[in-house]
Formats: sequence, C-alpha cells, structure tokens
Amino acid sequence: MLSSATVAFAVTIFGTAYAIRLFRAWNVGQFIQEELEGHMHKRGTPTMGGIVIVLAVVAGYAASHLRLQVQEEGIGWTVREFEAAGLLAVGAVVGMGVIGFIDDYQKLSRYRNQGLGIAAKLIGQLAIAGFFAWGAVASGTATSIGFIRPITVNLGVGLFAVWVLLMITGFANAVNITDGLDGLASGSTALVAGAYVIIGFWIFRHPAIYQVEGSLELASVASAMLGASLGFLWWNAAPARIIMGDVGSQALGGGMAALALLTNTHLLLVVIGGLYVVETLSVVIQVVGFRWFGGRRVFRMAPIHHHFELKNWPETTVITRFWILAAIGVALGLGLFYGDFLAGGGVDGLVVEGSG
Amino acid sequence: MLSSATVAFAVTIFGTAYAIRLFRAWNVGQFIQEELEGHMHKRGTPTMGGIVIVLAVVAGYAASHLRLQVQEEGIGWTVREFEAAGLLAVGAVVGMGVIGFIDDYQKLSRYRNQGLGIAAKLIGQLAIAGFFAWGAVASGTATSIGFIRPITVNLGVGLFAVWVLLMITGFANAVNITDGLDGLASGSTALVAGAYVIIGFWIFRHPAIYQVEGSLELASVASAMLGASLGFLWWNAAPARIIMGDVGSQALGGGMAALALLTNTHLLLVVIGGLYVVETLSVVIQVVGFRWFGGRRVFRMAPIHHHFELKNWPETTVITRFWILAAIGVALGLGLFYGDFLAGGGVDGLVVEGSG
Repeated sequence: MLSSATVAFAVTIFGTAYAIRLFRAWNVGQFIQEELEGHMHKRGTPTMGGIVIVLAVVAGYAASHLRLQVQEEGIGWTVREFEAAGLLAVGAVVGMGVIGFIDDYQKLSRYRNQGLGIAAKLIGQLAIAGFFAWGAVASGTATSIGFIRPITVNLGVGLFAVWVLLMITGFANAVNITDGLDGLASGSTALVAGAYVIIGFWIFRHPAIYQVEGSLELASVASAMLGASLGFLWWNAAPARIIMGDVGSQALGGGMAALALLTNTHLLLVVIGGLYVVETLSVVIQVVGFRWFGGRRVFRMAPIHHHFELKNWPETTVITRFWILAAIGVALGLGLFYGDFLAGGGVDGLVVEGSG
Repeated sequence: MLSSATVAFAVTIFGTAYAIRLFRAWNVGQFIQEELEGHMHKRGTPTMGGIVIVLAVVAGYAASHLRLQVQEEGIGWTVREFEAAGLLAVGAVVGMGVIGFIDDYQKLSRYRNQGLGIAAKLIGQLAIAGFFAWGAVASGTATSIGFIRPITVNLGVGLFAVWVLLMITGFANAVNITDGLDGLASGSTALVAGAYVIIGFWIFRHPAIYQVEGSLELASVASAMLGASLGFLWWNAAPARIIMGDVGSQALGGGMAALALLTNTHLLLVVIGGLYVVETLSVVIQVVGFRWFGGRRVFRMAPIHHHFELKNWPETTVITRFWILAAIGVALGLGLFYGDFLAGGGVDGLVVEGSG
C-alpha cells in the first residue's frame, strides 16, 4: 500500500509540474463564471490536471502488484495477480475520468463553461455503470444495498445496476460540485481515500466478519487515490497553479463510489463523504427554493462554499474549514464502521479480542 | 474516543471564538520579528490561543471517562476510572502549556519577542520531566529507548528521566519552531495526533504483542489533541484570527512526546513528526553554517518555512505543502509501525490473522 501511494504521489508531483507547463503552452485555461468576481484572477489557470490524477491512480495500483525479488540469479520482478475488485475500482476511476475529459474538452473548444451533451454523457455513464455492475456481480460482490455490511433487502442484478449508476454518477457530480475552491476537492478526497485505506485494510484483517472480495486490492486503490490527491494538492494548493477539471473530479468521485460499492459501505460513504453530500444538497436546496418558493435564494450563492465567500470569509478560510468538516465526516464514518464491527463481532458469535 | 475528540473540538471551536474577542479587548497581540516583512500585517493578532487548546485536551480526556447510563431510576453518569497513562500524558500537555504560558506572558509584558529566563524555564521543564519519568516508571512503562517497541538497551530510571526531558522539551521546541505560519502547527498536529489515535488503538487491540499500560487512555488523549487542533485550526486557518503562542505549541509538542514515551514509540515519533524534525534541523544547520563555516547562510532564513516564503512561495502554498510533508511522515510512520507488527507477530510465535 505504501508503494501504491508513493508511486501515485510521485506521478502527480512530477507529472502535474509537467502538465502545468504543457497546458500553459497549449493554452488550456479554465473558464470562470461571471458571477464569481473574486475568482476572475483564476481565469486561464491550466485545467484538466485530473488527467495526471487518473494516470497516477493507474500507475500506483499497478505498482502495488510488482514485487522486487532478490535471488541468486539476480534481481527480478514478480507480478502479483490482479483481482477483479481492484480492476473494477480503477476502471471506474478511468471510465469516469474519460467522461470528465470529454466534458472538459468540449467546454474548452467552445470557450464556454458547459460541456458534453446530456444524452451522450448519460450513455457513457450507463455503459460504465453497467460494466461495473456486471463485473461486481460476477466477482461476488453483494447486490444488496449496504450501510456498512449488506442488509437483507437484495436488489437483484437489474436494480443493483441502477443503484451503481446512481452511486457513481451521484458522487462524481458531488465531487465536481465541491471542486470550486483551490485544493478543496483534492484535499478532501485525500481524507476520504485515507478512510478507505483503513476500511479496506480492516476488512482484509477480519475476513471472517466481512464478505468482501479483494479488500487489500481496494485498500491499494484507495492508497493510490490518496497519494495522487496529495501529489496534485501540492500544485493545487491556494493559489492554484492548476485545476483538476471534470476529468479529475468525476474520476475521484467515481472511484470513491466504486470503493463504497465493493466494500458494501454504500451508505456509509454518505457520512465519510459528508462534505460532498452537503455541497450537493446546497445546490438542490437553492434550486428548489428558487423555482418552487417564489424565487427565494436560501444561500447567497450555491454551491455553499461560494455562499461563505460572499459572506466575506477569505477563500483560504473556507477551504481549511471545509477540510475540517470533511475530516469530521471521515472520523464519524470510521467511528460508525468500528461500532458496527464491535456489534457485528458479537452477533456472529466471534470473540472480539480485547473489546471490553 | 469520538466523545473525547468531539468535546475537545467543541471546546476549541467555541472557546477560541470567545478568546479572540477577549484577547482583542485585552490587547494580547503577537509580536512579529522585523525580518518578516510579509508578516507585519499579523502584528496584533491575538495570541495565546493555546490556552483554549490545553483546556480542550483536559475536557476531552475527562469527557471520555463519562458514560451516560439510562436506568429505571432515571439518567445518570458513571465515571470510568482514570488510568496513570492518560493522566501522565494530559499532565505533560498541561505542564508544558504552563511553561509556554509564562513564556508568552513575559514576552507580552516586556513587549518583545523573548520570553522566560532560561534558568527558570529549565527548572520547570526538569520538574515536569522528573514527575513524568517517576509516574511512567511507577505505572510500568518500559525505561528502555524504543523505536516501536522497547529495545534491549535499558536506560535505568535515572537516564530514562534525562531521556524524557530530552524528548519532551525537544518536541515542545520543535513544534514551537514549526509554529510560524497560519495553521501550520495546528494542522500538522492534527495529523500526528490522528496517527497516535490509530497506534494507541492498535496496541489496545493487540495486548498480547505490546507491553503498554492504558493504551486506550492514550488513544483518548490523542483524540482530544486531534479534536482540539482541528477546532483551533478553524480560527487559525489562513488568514489567522488567533495564534496559539508558546502555550499551545509547547503543550502540543509535550503531549506528542508523552504519547511516544508511553507507547514505547520514542524514535518512531521522529518519522511521524518528521516535519518538526526537519524544521528544527533547518535551524540547527543554519546556525552551524553561520557560526562555524564563515557566516554562510544555508537557507535564506530559518526555520525552513520562511526560506520558501522568501523564495516567493505564497504563504498558503508553503502551509499546504508542509501539511503534505507532515502527512507523508505520518503515513511512513504508520507503515513502519505496521511492518513491525507483522514482523513481531511472527517472532513472538503469534499467528497474525490474514497476514499473507
């Protein structure tokens, strides 16, 4: 897992530096909404840095499968087998990254802050969700909705595919919405990925209690996401030298959802990724309030991070405070996960060592 | 542990807001070195916010001992017994906090950025280290230096007391040196404290492998430090509304050292708290280079975070990147801790479940 995180970190730290130069030369700059006067200085900051994040996750995950072997004949590499769970999670990252990339590319080529046609996007998302659901079912993932473990309501394969679609696109969009301040999305993703390193690892160490295939693989993918987010944050920290773009936020959001789906912690992600849920709800509340309650604005602006900016919190204050909120979500989520472990250990009749 | 972190967080979030108003009214402002032109706007920012951190750690630790009990006669509280390890760690936080407070107070009353007389300070530190060493030995803590577990070289009580003094004052000063940019010390302390939540907790769950008394208590203290740091960071985030001062940095540094001493991870703290070590080394290197090698300056300015500021990294960039470095130290440290666990589990003849 350390190798996974290290390689992903190295790829984003060096790769992003290269991308900044390259994208500057190519004039790949971010468009900024007109309403955000305070953000106009960010116009032209290179975007699509998420490409490097996606590559880093793939490289980190792959690296975690290499093992250096010193033998009499010399030094050699062996490749540990790739398991379905890891490939599916990385596949979700790459697949959603591609959708985000097309989105970014179209925005740039049309010089406006709108992207891919809705129909085309939905077809792409459907394809990813369908493939993911098929792979997950084939490799033995539970098809019932889980909070921390699968609950009794089994969805069946068809409904499970719909649920996968909702989870993956929902979190991809939620991270996308959150990605509006320097480092907000990358920093908070590092925290969420860190939580999934712990969860994947805990599941791996207690195979009798959890029915999860390839949990160590999932911890490796989470490590790669952690390393990639931190390496990207190095350049994305306020004032940002580069922005991740849809390719980054969709990939990371899709990756989180994949980790939750494959570890049966679907609904726990709502707590662990609470920041993204709050950000998304703020947009929903704003739209509902505006359309259905006579044009009232609940927030000065949505998503909610801009609301606080307009209340004159400095941008760096909003970023750090929202990271703190993300950390609280992660802490609560891990607490719930452990509470369930203690409770479940008793229920299954397993002796939980030292749980007194 | 969640209650410990929650209470500590609540105390610093609300307490610090109160302290900001109070200290402003009292005119308790920070003095800024003349060399730091870019920091002159911070002159007069309220300082000594660390008082709230110390109170929060005490409150959080105490709260983790309360248990709500719903009985037929009504709702009541029971108090879980306080153990030596937790009291010693909290004692180190409070004791070093008091030393820092006197330091801060003297600086303020003399209107210059120098503090407590060196002799008086040393006596205070000696008293704390002596008391801590006595308590640790009395409650069964190993008196040999440990990397992750006690090693064979046993120091005996006398040398152990000296070692305690070095660890506690060393890390107190290291965090103090690091505390020069908005949120740098509080944010990185949150990461280190988080690592000790995991370590304390891991030790607690594997009592057969580690000989540590009161590991869950130590995890509670670490949780309180984590909560207190995050709550303080809420107000300390760039641009800082309040500064923790020596009272905060000495308390948190002393607390970290205490956690390392009581969990026998003395030298591992050098990795987990690698950021503080690097910051301190930068000062040592600068002084040695200047005095002994003909007035050469290795860094533009020490501690090293100012070096990067003078290289025109924006302050927020330095802060975020140094947090990333702190996170890498924590990740490496936890990796080493787990590696030792796997290795040691084999050595002791214990079957490590699922270690394949």
